[in-house]
Amino acid sequence: MAEKIVIGLDAMGGDFAPAEPVLGGYMAAKENPEIELVLIGREEEIKEHLPSELPNLRIHHASQVISMEDPPALSIRRKKDSSISVGADLLKKGEISAFVSAGNTGAVVSAATLKVRLLPGIERPGLAVVFPTMKGTPVVIIDVGANIDTKPTHLLQYGLMATVYCRLMWEGVENPRVGILNIGEEESKGTSTYKEAASLLKGSGLNFVGNVEGKDIFKGLADIVVMDGFVGNVVLKVSEGAADAVITMLKREIYEASWWTKLGAMLFLLPAYKRLKKKIDYSEYGGALLLGINGVCIICHGRSNARAIRNAIMVAVKEIKRKVNEKILEELKSLNPTKEE
Amino acid sequence: MAEKIVIGLDAMGGDFAPAEPVLGGYMAAKENPEIELVLIGREEEIKEHLPSELPNLRIHHASQVISMEDPPALSIRRKKDSSISVGADLLKKGEISAFVSAGNTGAVVSAATLKVRLLPGIERPGLAVVFPTMKGTPVVIIDVGANIDTKPTHLLQYGLMATVYCRLMWEGVENPRVGILNIGEEESKGTSTYKEAASLLKGSGLNFVGNVEGKDIFKGLADIVVMDGFVGNVVLKVSEGAADAVITMLKREIYEASWWTKLGAMLFLLPAYKRLKKKIDYSEYGGALLLGINGVCIICHGRSNARAIRNAIMVAVKEIKRKVNEKILEELKSLNPTKEE
Repeated sequence: MAEKIVIGLDAMGGDFAPAEPVLGGYMAAKENPEIELVLIGREEEIKEHLPSELPNLRIHHASQVISMEDPPALSIRRKKDSSISVGADLLKKGEISAFVSAGNTGAVVSAATLKVRLLPGIERPGLAVVFPTMKGTPVVIIDVGANIDTKPTHLLQYGLMATVYCRLMWEGVENPRVGILNIGEEESKGTSTYKEAASLLKGSGLNFVGNVEGKDIFKGLADIVVMDGFVGNVVLKVSEGAADAVITMLKREIYEASWWTKLGAMLFLLPAYKRLKKKIDYSEYGGALLLGINGVCIICHGRSNARAIRNAIMVAVKEIKRKVNEKILEELKSLNPTKEE
Repeated sequence: MAEKIVIGLDAMGGDFAPAEPVLGGYMAAKENPEIELVLIGREEEIKEHLPSELPNLRIHHASQVISMEDPPALSIRRKKDSSISVGADLLKKGEISAFVSAGNTGAVVSAATLKVRLLPGIERPGLAVVFPTMKGTPVVIIDVGANIDTKPTHLLQYGLMATVYCRLMWEGVENPRVGILNIGEEESKGTSTYKEAASLLKGSGLNFVGNVEGKDIFKGLADIVVMDGFVGNVVLKVSEGAADAVITMLKREIYEASWWTKLGAMLFLLPAYKRLKKKIDYSEYGGALLLGINGVCIICHGRSNARAIRNAIMVAVKEIKRKVNEKILEELKSLNPTKEE
C-alpha cells in the first residue's frame, strides 16, 4: 500500500474555529482515503465538534491558541504550545507534509519562516494569493506580506516559484505570463528595486511580459504579478476594501431608491451578487500559498467555512502530489547556475 | 473694481480635448464674472469649439500638444510650446494664479515641479485625490505619484498640506483626522520610512490617528491618508481596477442569468449603478490636487467632460480665495520652527 499523504490542520485557527476547521478536515479525510489528517489543537474542543471517528483522522493536542489579534512574531515565541507553533514544528520534523491554517496570517508566516527552513537557494518566502480576473482566468499575486524588506532577487524568485506553481497546478497553462507591478507601462518607471527586478526577470528565461499597472491586475493581462510584500499587502486589502465599498454604496443607492426598485433589486440583483461573491471569495481558490519554505503551507481566510478549509486541504494534497517544491528547486538551478555550483 | 482671479486652462488635455475642456472653461467663465479664463492651446482649434466670445475669456496660443502616451519628463523638455509647458510657464510668471489640465498627469506634475517652484520649506510636491467612503464622507489620499523617492519628512508635510486643504476647503471639518497607510494597526508594522513618518506625525500637533490599512481607506476612519507616491499610485489604480472588476463581473453574472433577471437588472440596477458611478467618479470632486507647488494646480481625469472641467476650475478658484498656500506656509512655520528661522 502506498504511504499516506499526511496533512496537518490548525483546528483552532479562524473566526469559526474549532467548528468549521474540524468539519472541513473531517470532510477532506472522509472523501480521500489516501490522506491522513492530523487535527492540531485542544483535544477536548476538537472532539466536541468531530461528527465521528475516521481511520485516517487523528488529533494532535496543542494547549494554546494564537488569536487573530495577537502580535505575530511575539506570539510564536511566547505560545510554544499553540496550534500554529506546533503545526510548524510537525512540518519541520517531517511528521506532516503540509500545514493548513485559517488562523493569524502573520503568525503562520512567522512560524513557518522561523521554524521550517527555506528551500535551499530561496532567499525569502513569498505569500501568494489567487484572484479572479475580468477575463475569467485567475491571477497570482505574490508577495502579499511575507517579506517587506524586498530585494530585486526576491522578486525574481517570486516569479519563478509562481511560474512553477501555475504550470503544475493549473490545467492548460504551460508558460504562465509573469508581470511586475509598476506605476506605468514604460521600463523607466518605478523605484530602483522594481527597475532592477524587471531587468532580472527579462533575462531569466521566464515568460516575462513587463510592467503591469494596478488597474490592469484584474484584467488578466498576466497570470502572475510580482510585487514587494508591503505593496502586495496594500493591493490585497485595497482590492477587498474597494470591492466592498462599491457593493455597499450600490446597496445604499438601491436602499434609497423607490420601493419598486428595492423589490426589483432583491429579486434580480441579489442572486447575481451572491454568485459573484462566491467567485471573488479567495477562500474558494484554496487560500494563500506560502511559497519558498521547505514544506507545503496554506493560509486560509479567517472567515473560512468548512468547505473552504476542505478546498485548501485538497490544494495542499495536489501541491504535494505534483511535487511543486521539488520542481522549484530544479528550476532554481537553471536560473542561478553560479549560485548553485 | 476688484482684480479678477486668472485661471489658466489646458484646452488640449484629456481624451475629449479640445471640445470638452473648451466648453468647460466657457461654462466657468460665463457663470463667474469674477474670474478671467485663459484657454491655453491651438488658437484655431479652440475657436472652433468656443460657443461664443466672452469678455472674461481669452486664448493663449500654444502650438504643441503632449499626448497621454508621451513620456512625461521628456515631453516637457522637448515640447516647449505645448499647452502644458506654456501653462506651467504662465503660472511661474504669475500671469495666471492656477493651472487646470485634464492632460498627461506625469507631464503636468513634471512641468509644475520643474518650472514653478515649490513653496518655501516644502521638500516635495504631493498629488492628492479625493475619494468617497462608505460613510458618505470624502477621504484625501496623498501622494498618488508625484514623488516616488519618499522620505519620512515628505509624508509629514503631506499630512500638513492636506490638513490645511481640508480645513479651508471643506465645511465642518475643523480638525481633520490624519492616518498613515500601513499593513497593520500596530505601531511596529511596516518599513522604516513608514515607522519614522508615523513617529513624526505623532509629535506634529496634527490630528494623527495612526495606521490605516488598505481595506479601511474607504471606511471613512480618517479624513486624510498619507502614503508614498509609488504605493499611492498603486492604491489609486487598484481601487479603480477592483471597482471596475466587481461591476464587470456583476454585469456578467446578470448577462448569464435568465431573461427576466436581465430585464429586472436593466430596470432596477442600472439607475442605481449610474448614480453610484457619478459619486465615485473622482472628476466630480474637482480632480487631483498638486499640493506643495507655489501656485494652484489641478489635474483632472483624462475622461473629464465639460462639467468635470468646470468643477475643477471652481475648486481652483476656491483654493485661491481661501488662501490654501499662504496658510500652508504659516502652518509649516509652527511645524518646523528650527528649519524656518
